[in-house]
Amino acid sequence: MFDANDIRQDFTILNQTVNDEPLVYLDNAATTQKPQQVLASLQQYYQHDNANVHRGVHTLAERATARYEASREKLRRFINAASVKEVLFTRGTTTGLNWVADFAQGVLQADDEVLISVMEHHSNLIPWQEACRKSGAKLKYVYLKDNALDLEGLKQQVNAKTKFVSIAHVSNVLGCVNPIKEIAHLVHKYDAYLVVDGAQSAPHIPIDVQDLDCDFFAFSGHKMLGPTGIGVLYGKASVLKDMPPVEFGGEMIDFVYEQTASWKELPWKFEAGTPNVAGAIALGAAADYLETLGMDAVRAHEEDLAAYLLPQLQAIDGLELYGPQKADRHLGVFSFNLSGLHPHDVATALDYEGVAVRAGHHCAQPLLRHLGIQSAVRASLYIYNTKEDCDRLISAILKAKEFFHGTF
Amino acid sequence: MFDANDIRQDFTILNQTVNDEPLVYLDNAATTQKPQQVLASLQQYYQHDNANVHRGVHTLAERATARYEASREKLRRFINAASVKEVLFTRGTTTGLNWVADFAQGVLQADDEVLISVMEHHSNLIPWQEACRKSGAKLKYVYLKDNALDLEGLKQQVNAKTKFVSIAHVSNVLGCVNPIKEIAHLVHKYDAYLVVDGAQSAPHIPIDVQDLDCDFFAFSGHKMLGPTGIGVLYGKASVLKDMPPVEFGGEMIDFVYEQTASWKELPWKFEAGTPNVAGAIALGAAADYLETLGMDAVRAHEEDLAAYLLPQLQAIDGLELYGPQKADRHLGVFSFNLSGLHPHDVATALDYEGVAVRAGHHCAQPLLRHLGIQSAVRASLYIYNTKEDCDRLISAILKAKEFFHGTF
Repeated sequence: MFDANDIRQDFTILNQTVNDEPLVYLDNAATTQKPQQVLASLQQYYQHDNANVHRGVHTLAERATARYEASREKLRRFINAASVKEVLFTRGTTTGLNWVADFAQGVLQADDEVLISVMEHHSNLIPWQEACRKSGAKLKYVYLKDNALDLEGLKQQVNAKTKFVSIAHVSNVLGCVNPIKEIAHLVHKYDAYLVVDGAQSAPHIPIDVQDLDCDFFAFSGHKMLGPTGIGVLYGKASVLKDMPPVEFGGEMIDFVYEQTASWKELPWKFEAGTPNVAGAIALGAAADYLETLGMDAVRAHEEDLAAYLLPQLQAIDGLELYGPQKADRHLGVFSFNLSGLHPHDVATALDYEGVAVRAGHHCAQPLLRHLGIQSAVRASLYIYNTKEDCDRLISAILKAKEFFHGTF
Repeated sequence: MFDANDIRQDFTILNQTVNDEPLVYLDNAATTQKPQQVLASLQQYYQHDNANVHRGVHTLAERATARYEASREKLRRFINAASVKEVLFTRGTTTGLNWVADFAQGVLQADDEVLISVMEHHSNLIPWQEACRKSGAKLKYVYLKDNALDLEGLKQQVNAKTKFVSIAHVSNVLGCVNPIKEIAHLVHKYDAYLVVDGAQSAPHIPIDVQDLDCDFFAFSGHKMLGPTGIGVLYGKASVLKDMPPVEFGGEMIDFVYEQTASWKELPWKFEAGTPNVAGAIALGAAADYLETLGMDAVRAHEEDLAAYLLPQLQAIDGLELYGPQKADRHLGVFSFNLSGLHPHDVATALDYEGVAVRAGHHCAQPLLRHLGIQSAVRASLYIYNTKEDCDRLISAILKAKEFFHGTF
């Protein structure tokens, strides 16, 4: 186990005041901060090795290529993929899920079914709307039970018409962890593909895509200490082998004639154009950082904080907490509203106390509509958050309540 | 006018030895190096302001959003777009051109025609093959005259069936500048769209998209002092308004229901998911850097070096130079072969002397086939290159000749 206070030394950005109060950053489900090790990796790359990859015979190009591909291996290890061929660098989760939905569009026939859940982030929802609209397939939903995924409902909806099931590993609003392995078993009985939105899981819990047995797993670098503009799409080699490329251009080809072209092998056939070389290398540094802490320890730290924070939130009069009400079913994502107060006002009041949280629909409008709300406040934790941060959040919420009740 | 020797102080990476020789970096058409000002911008963002954009009410999110959108304004100014609505952040030129070809696929009907040139980079070629294959349209080519674009040939090929013309502003192999404004006039007479691959022009010459009157203009950050993983697609607002989004997810929507969704206004309807915030901000810093030098001065510096280098290359016995043979028709891109020597061997020999050049097909196989070759050596210049660098290149080429002639 690690001490979050030690970790904070690596994050210069946390050492600032906001509205004259020391910053408490609780917007980690939106994006995380970056340790010095990741920033140093960016600088070091640009100051020593920067060149385009895969194309050059000169020394810098060879160094850049070696580092880029070494980073792919780090990411492979991070999710325990069977091969680096299965690790595609993307711009982020959204791009990865769009690629899969684009593939789906070519596979789906009219009357086929795609199954997603009502808790999906828009990035795992609108691409499926589009794939279904263009192919004539039907988009079906699984709903909630006990404030989490209705697994029985999911089991009832999967059938021979189902071709794709796409589910968040961890909800960015509810904080619940969905039983992917169990879902994979079911989905594969019907020869459908299982797609996992791992944006909120890969940064927080150990990932083993072979054990999960999903066909695709998409995640973002910037939510796991890495830079913006880089992410990973994992796909089983057996699936990626027959999946057409989504972007076309340099470096993904073998031969190009005026009217036709042939593609490189995996993983390069999916990586057209100059990739985000520095981003990929720095994401490798982020994976190194997390592996040094240990992903089991990362999860334990967050569960520890969640167990500390949850009852304190529940004890606040007029606070409605969404998602599972028990700490052991919760990662460090807490969405809530205060009776009679607009979530934007609450977030503004918390910011006034130096506490950074998010307010809005969290890119999950169908879920919020299902919950009967338009927006919510969300506090989300990560490795550098402490019990003191939780105390500051609680104290700021109480102050906000007091302030607004005094005003109105 | 600036002094390249002063500029070099901003580029730490240039101050290194490769194979015991001071590095001469002449692979700028592949990617450029980054000045300290750009790297400082990345660090400063991550150490002070990092947050997700457009979604937050907290202080860091507001700062990040303001800086991200301020960078869009810098890029607007850099290409003189009429509005920031016309400036879309992408992963790079390849992604931008793929988006346009994806749009074209929806517009094109069987028997329509798309016209490109034989000098196109694969990223402005394979997307059009795909758009034509999927729509049944015909992909036609313009060829060369006097080692540059055959403008008369282009004029003869544009007709009422032509729906898209897509042309490189500057060839990444030949180094010639294509007369976009003249082409635009012709293309618009037939109500076709003109798409410009600006990857090799935006970093090197002043760009005014309103004066060029193109409908789309795509370029990359990493070829103009910016970080990897970020680029810009310019599109006329009148065109973008009716163009469907290409990627779907968070932040590009107004309302999302279970089966339908509506899109935000320009430019955000094209920017699904968390953008490359740091990349966009650092690209703004790169544009600032170039504007401080002045793009006229950047062009003049390169033309000056080209006029110095070209006759020296031409004077080397057995060296065949591709592209225009006159310096005033040349930007700083020089592709050549040495009689009897494989370009990879030449590049390796130059690397041995510390001179970084590229060898290969330069992602332009149809052009090289048209030229009757499989690959070539390419030396490409930028703002930090000096006449001494040119001398080192010439001297290394002569040494390579001597070495191989001695060996064989």
